Amino acid sequence: MLRSALRLRRSMATFSGLKLNEVVNVLEKFAPASLAEKWDNVGLLIEPSTDKHVERILLTNDLTEPVLGEALEKNVDLIISYHPPIFRPLTRITMCNWKERIVVGCLANSKALYSPHTAWDKVVGGVNDWLAKAVDIKGIKPLVPEPGAVDGTGSGRLVETSMPISQLVHALQDHIDNSVHVAYAVDHHPKTFVHTVGICAGSGGSVLKGIKADLVITGEMSHHELLDFNHNGTTVLLCNHSNSERGFLREFQCILKERLQEKCEVIVSEKDKDPLQTAFRSNSQAVQQVKQ
Amino acid sequence: MLRSALRLRRSMATFSGLKLNEVVNVLEKFAPASLAEKWDNVGLLIEPSTDKHVERILLTNDLTEPVLGEALEKNVDLIISYHPPIFRPLTRITMCNWKERIVVGCLANSKALYSPHTAWDKVVGGVNDWLAKAVDIKGIKPLVPEPGAVDGTGSGRLVETSMPISQLVHALQDHIDNSVHVAYAVDHHPKTFVHTVGICAGSGGSVLKGIKADLVITGEMSHHELLDFNHNGTTVLLCNHSNSERGFLREFQCILKERLQEKCEVIVSEKDKDPLQTAFRSNSQAVQQVKQ
Amino acid sequence: MLRSALRLRRSMATFSGLKLNEVVNVLEKFAPASLAEKWDNVGLLIEPSTDKHVERILLTNDLTEPVLGEALEKNVDLIISYHPPIFRPLTRITMCNWKERIVVGCLANSKALYSPHTAWDKVVGGVNDWLAKAVDIKGIKPLVPEPGAVDGTGSGRLVETSMPISQLVHALQDHIDNSVHVAYAVDHHPKTFVHTVGICAGSGGSVLKGIKADLVITGEMSHHELLDFNHNGTTVLLCNHSNSERGFLREFQCILKERLQEKCEVIVSEKDKDPLQTAFRSNSQAVQQVKQ
Amino acid sequence: MLRSALRLRRSMATFSGLKLNEVVNVLEKFAPASLAEKWDNVGLLIEPSTDKHVERILLTNDLTEPVLGEALEKNVDLIISYHPPIFRPLTRITMCNWKERIVVGCLANSKALYSPHTAWDKVVGGVNDWLAKAVDIKGIKPLVPEPGAVDGTGSGRLVETSMPISQLVHALQDHIDNSVHVAYAVDHHPKTFVHTVGICAGSGGSVLKGIKADLVITGEMSHHELLDFNHNGTTVLLCNHSNSERGFLREFQCILKERLQEKCEVIVSEKDKDPLQTAFRSNSQAVQQVKQ
Amino acid sequence: MLRSALRLRRSMATFSGLKLNEVVNVLEKFAPASLAEKWDNVGLLIEPSTDKHVERILLTNDLTEPVLGEALEKNVDLIISYHPPIFRPLTRITMCNWKERIVVGCLANSKALYSPHTAWDKVVGGVNDWLAKAVDIKGIKPLVPEPGAVDGTGSGRLVETSMPISQLVHALQDHIDNSVHVAYAVDHHPKTFVHTVGICAGSGGSVLKGIKADLVITGEMSHHELLDFNHNGTTVLLCNHSNSERGFLREFQCILKERLQEKCEVIVSEKDKDPLQTAFRSNSQAVQQVKQ
Amino acid sequence: MLRSALRLRRSMATFSGLKLNEVVNVLEKFAPASLAEKWDNVGLLIEPSTDKHVERILLTNDLTEPVLGEALEKNVDLIISYHPPIFRPLTRITMCNWKERIVVGCLANSKALYSPHTAWDKVVGGVNDWLAKAVDIKGIKPLVPEPGAVDGTGSGRLVETSMPISQLVHALQDHIDNSVHVAYAVDHHPKTFVHTVGICAGSGGSVLKGIKADLVITGEMSHHELLDFNHNGTTVLLCNHSNSERGFLREFQCILKERLQEKCEVIVSEKDKDPLQTAFRSNSQAVQQVKQ
Repeated sequence: MLRSALRLRRSMATFSGLKLNEVVNVLEKFAPASLAEKWDNVGLLIEPSTDKHVERILLTNDLTEPVLGEALEKNVDLIISYHPPIFRPLTRITMCNWKERIVVGCLANSKALYSPHTAWDKVVGGVNDWLAKAVDIKGIKPLVPEPGAVDGTGSGRLVETSMPISQLVHALQDHIDNSVHVAYAVDHHPKTFVHTVGICAGSGGSVLKGIKADLVITGEMSHHELLDFNHNGTTVLLCNHSNSERGFLREFQCILKERLQEKCEVIVSEKDKDPLQTAFRSNSQAVQQVKQ
Repeated sequence: MLRSALRLRRSMATFSGLKLNEVVNVLEKFAPASLAEKWDNVGLLIEPSTDKHVERILLTNDLTEPVLGEALEKNVDLIISYHPPIFRPLTRITMCNWKERIVVGCLANSKALYSPHTAWDKVVGGVNDWLAKAVDIKGIKPLVPEPGAVDGTGSGRLVETSMPISQLVHALQDHIDNSVHVAYAVDHHPKTFVHTVGICAGSGGSVLKGIKADLVITGEMSHHELLDFNHNGTTVLLCNHSNSERGFLREFQCILKERLQEKCEVIVSEKDKDPLQTAFRSNSQAVQQVKQ
Repeated sequence: MLRSALRLRRSMATFSGLKLNEVVNVLEKFAPASLAEKWDNVGLLIEPSTDKHVERILLTNDLTEPVLGEALEKNVDLIISYHPPIFRPLTRITMCNWKERIVVGCLANSKALYSPHTAWDKVVGGVNDWLAKAVDIKGIKPLVPEPGAVDGTGSGRLVETSMPISQLVHALQDHIDNSVHVAYAVDHHPKTFVHTVGICAGSGGSVLKGIKADLVITGEMSHHELLDFNHNGTTVLLCNHSNSERGFLREFQCILKERLQEKCEVIVSEKDKDPLQTAFRSNSQAVQQVKQ
Repeated sequence: MLRSALRLRRSMATFSGLKLNEVVNVLEKFAPASLAEKWDNVGLLIEPSTDKHVERILLTNDLTEPVLGEALEKNVDLIISYHPPIFRPLTRITMCNWKERIVVGCLANSKALYSPHTAWDKVVGGVNDWLAKAVDIKGIKPLVPEPGAVDGTGSGRLVETSMPISQLVHALQDHIDNSVHVAYAVDHHPKTFVHTVGICAGSGGSVLKGIKADLVITGEMSHHELLDFNHNGTTVLLCNHSNSERGFLREFQCILKERLQEKCEVIVSEKDKDPLQTAFRSNSQAVQQVKQ
Repeated sequence: MLRSALRLRRSMATFSGLKLNEVVNVLEKFAPASLAEKWDNVGLLIEPSTDKHVERILLTNDLTEPVLGEALEKNVDLIISYHPPIFRPLTRITMCNWKERIVVGCLANSKALYSPHTAWDKVVGGVNDWLAKAVDIKGIKPLVPEPGAVDGTGSGRLVETSMPISQLVHALQDHIDNSVHVAYAVDHHPKTFVHTVGICAGSGGSVLKGIKADLVITGEMSHHELLDFNHNGTTVLLCNHSNSERGFLREFQCILKERLQEKCEVIVSEKDKDPLQTAFRSNSQAVQQVKQ
Repeated sequence: MLRSALRLRRSMATFSGLKLNEVVNVLEKFAPASLAEKWDNVGLLIEPSTDKHVERILLTNDLTEPVLGEALEKNVDLIISYHPPIFRPLTRITMCNWKERIVVGCLANSKALYSPHTAWDKVVGGVNDWLAKAVDIKGIKPLVPEPGAVDGTGSGRLVETSMPISQLVHALQDHIDNSVHVAYAVDHHPKTFVHTVGICAGSGGSVLKGIKADLVITGEMSHHELLDFNHNGTTVLLCNHSNSERGFLREFQCILKERLQEKCEVIVSEKDKDPLQTAFRSNSQAVQQVKQ
């Protein structure tokens, strides 16, 4: 840890920084909070003072306690957490609940917090457009176009392609750098060619419901939703929730650096990861079938 | 301000202090949070760390920004605010809203916050029992006795007495050290004797509604509620909301000091006051009538 | 009482009167019932017969039992009560409840009853425009303009001015001929100049909420609303609910006489008054501060 | 009309009368308002003054405008209307609506109004017990016994008997002195013997729903309810709504006279009748079948 | 029954039949399911297989168990039931409930089921237009015109005419070939001329509520609705629910035959009938009055 | 398939069978439908006739279309599907929706359908007790004991044990014969010993929420639920929804055979399987960690 601390200390010298509200303006220009779903809680969620100065920014998918520890250790000024750490409204802020401890940790250490969530899902060049890159894209459009917004903006994506399922599974594994879970449609098998692919990062059951697609890619889906898709002729690929979103942070790191004109340092969390890992049972029937 | 700062600095030396959770236990022993109304938000509302040490405690009726400024200046560790500063649940904590600024101010400066509200209203020897002392008490009981609690516990108070209204108005003025607003029952006048008095500190319209009483004392009441009481034979005395509650803090200061075995300093806010003051119109008809 | 009865009897001889529905048409022309808020209950509330003839009309802010007594004594045909005496719908009409007794009293004595309430609040030249006259008006417009109505119609008023608060308090005392209650904004004092003033007769908390104004004038407001306004930079002046409305009746008396072409006598109640009167505590701190 | 007026005038001389509240006490003793359903609106609905004296009482099933005319002509003091004329709560009382005109008519002419409705349905010896007398009763009990009330009290009645349907139809015609509508169960015919009969005066669909009975008697029932009963093995006899209730008034006339110790005259309305009458089509198939 | 079975068998030879979805297309062309009310459940309710062939169709107003028996005996392929047999959604399909038994009976015997209900009520030339033919029509339009639909489409009908009530009662008896129930407006009698007639087949209380009409014709109406209509100057004629609808089936039989180009046999149920029949009490007062 | 068909045909000869309602009685004795949750839909869901005879029974976790095909091919009389195929209530039964096609397929082929779901979850010796066998049990009790039921009955299970997580993962893999997904608590690692284990087959998020346990085992859980458990000190093992339930069918096969006294053949579906299979990415970081 010593070496990384040294490296950070040196790099700090080179960033003049910006006012928090200037950084927020840049973030809102990329994807305005007004784009987000009505039920969502996005934008600047914690503002520790009126004159907060920002030199270093940490990007994370989830602001867990290990990631907050990293933020404190690396002395960042602003945390951008894709998922909003405050979702259920708070009536008190104590040490009894991890979400409240996150708030205490930010405010006691003067860390600002910004969450974009569904605003990033909908924006052109956002999370869903990143996830769609796993597919050989012949055409792409939003599943639910956003009224009054730039063409291409909206919830989910519908991609035209022509690939066998087995090839798409491998391409998705490479894109997210992780395992993938497959639920075949009743009449599908690994060699079935798919021509329309629905995309929804995160938990896509409700956005993808009822669409006409040979295959859908999302993060997680319940058992009963899976059976519905499979009986309606749609194969489902699941990445695990945050694995369908996290890869976008590397893309956004470059975007943000440039938009802030290199005045702030932008780093991606090393502690942020999907909570789930698969304990593979070598001789189980399920794994075998994928190899066919 | 210099002299008071000096006095405080000296006094600080003499208090060994207690852990926050020990102080909370003492507060809960006086009036458990479970006594509060279902819709209320009471107890420890802000806990800045797990090992918070408390040497100085500030009592206030409302935690306004001036009172928070006083708390910072006097370097208290715990603020006990009768009214909960967090009531509408929070989805973010920024500088745009005064309630959120209070939260930032507490957490950024490691101040704990505790609010008792309706738990203090119901408890024996609490806010309503204090307010009732304005009356010449011949008998007293709760308006809504608390099931399963010590005798005398509950919402509001019903007092038996025998006083003319004019005398009670003067007694109440003395007790709260402030002006009082009077709404006479349709058939009442200053010399009418009252025998039953309903008491409800704060905004008593709903608790007092429908009770049989010659007179009620509360903090504030709407015009249409006043007309209802006056037509049902009940004269109403209003103190202004917080003037019906604030005087209890002096009583509680002594109680708390003793229960903490003098290990913490307990001070009452000098900035806390009712927002309203009456700009008296000398020759107006309304004021005259009270003198009859 | 004898002399006033004689005066009335003589005056009765000079008014030919109109049919009730003709009077209602004139009232609706001044402020149509359709202007009123959706939750309100306005218009002709009691019609004692199809061919009711109206010679004498009593104006009142609240139809209390003393005012009904006055109406019977003065033998009026129609009572115009600004506040609707029937608000909570009735499932029976008995002597157990004062609102029901008002209904019995009207119907048993063939008195018609009309209530305009929020229709008068919104109309140009109505209650809010009357209340605004306390201010030195440099510009005025509705807070919530009424869609499709004549310019200037709507809920509340926003007034441009330039006065120190202390001067405005005195002007308001003169305008309503009564005391006023003041709640200073956190950074305000008597000499602070105000430039925008929000106006809402009655209970203005919800209409005034969130507006940008240096000061607001209304009838009554709860403690927690006051703290919100004061922390958002707004001083609040309270008149007591009906004192913010009653003065309009004198203006309307002239308007109505003229519109009825002097065919009906129009009198203003002598029994109608605000239920509250302040019992002033001479040496209290609150009153002193206003004089600074 | 002259002769009846004379007869009335003479009879009036013989009744000393009672205070309204004394008559109400007698009515409540027969069937307390607390017996009525939660959704109902029963008891003293119009009280024209605190000291109303009652010499003559009119009983009616529905207080229609013709019945009110009769009440005025016969100069009664109290109308007892089985159905409450005020059901949907009133926000005004004008000549535009017949229910409101009824209220005006009562109050302008000092008529009191009392409605018992479901309190009379449930009480022992009330409306349902009267309707059940059409059946040859071998046993009888409430369908929904009233908790804590005298045995036999409750909603609806279940009667044990042994009669062919055709005989029961004729008995019911005689009992209500009117035509009856029959809906046979899928496997029933006029000669089918029935052993259990459900009774519910008025609109019995919800009270009778789901009970085990060979036949039910009620006032009215919707088409889809009829099909449900008929497919569950239950024949339905309909009387028309008020014909299933009105006959009880004659019984109650005697009960009330006696309970008032002949101090008041009690008369049954001559104008009150069911709104429906059947225009019989002589050669229609429906009528023929009943004769089999 | 033998002869009818023979006749049916012979006739079967002459119909080539159509695919179920072709028949459904023809039905939707006559009255699209999208015309129906939001709360309704119309269209193809039971589809026993993807390739169902339809040679014989049974029309019925209600699909009761006797009518299902007729459908099985006559070996029809499709039942068109005006009322939807599935209305309350099903969570199971067992033999305990007659609606569920209907579903089992259809599916176990490969019968398709289609229900048009309110789509037929609204369509031009549908159920309400058929019922209106009882009146001497001088003008006709929907009570609630359907936005965006062919002129004349909508809920209910308003007919201009000029007939005395007694004549209209007889005309309606002839049109539905059955008895009729009459509820006279407070000021009406048999010789009163009516000029506007509201029409609503089935249970018309809510559609007809508040319309200006001298008389309304519907299937059934509750007692309290009747009193409202009668006091608002409207006489009501009731046919019994299904008698106000059933006669249309004969008209539709011809329409459907032609639209299917005689490729399917279309028969009307012989078992379908209104559940109610009036047991006439010869000397009752009610019947007499109609003859005046 | 030929051999299995032969084997089936032979075996059929040996089973005398029982009436459907007798089999249902045996099933209800094992776990009464009244045990199920209020929101659930359990018991006999499809009854194709009143006198259904049952010789062969198919057990399945989910009644998918492939499993229905197997049921038809193997000519079973009753399908017992753990999950109810009818959950959202049906307003029609057509070929457009797979759940409706399941209903058509059962009724057109006279297959009965029974679903136990949460009744089996709660019963002693049911699904949760089976899943708990993966753990080295030192003590076991329900998480939510069922009031009034046999000891041990209720929702979920709480198991006392003493195992390192890595060992429990392997034991669970062996018990369900499949891969397992692991989400470590913030302070846990493979060698951490766990002492309390919460068990809930299926989707256990709500039943397990808030319990004190070192580890929980369930079928599926959302990303945000996982983060909550992990931050509250609880490691989560996920089996995939139906893999946490399916193994119980083999146990129940024996139980049912014996309780039916070998009068019916009981077989377990060969087509029933979890929709998901993991496509393992060999060099991904996630898998590696499990091996530590």
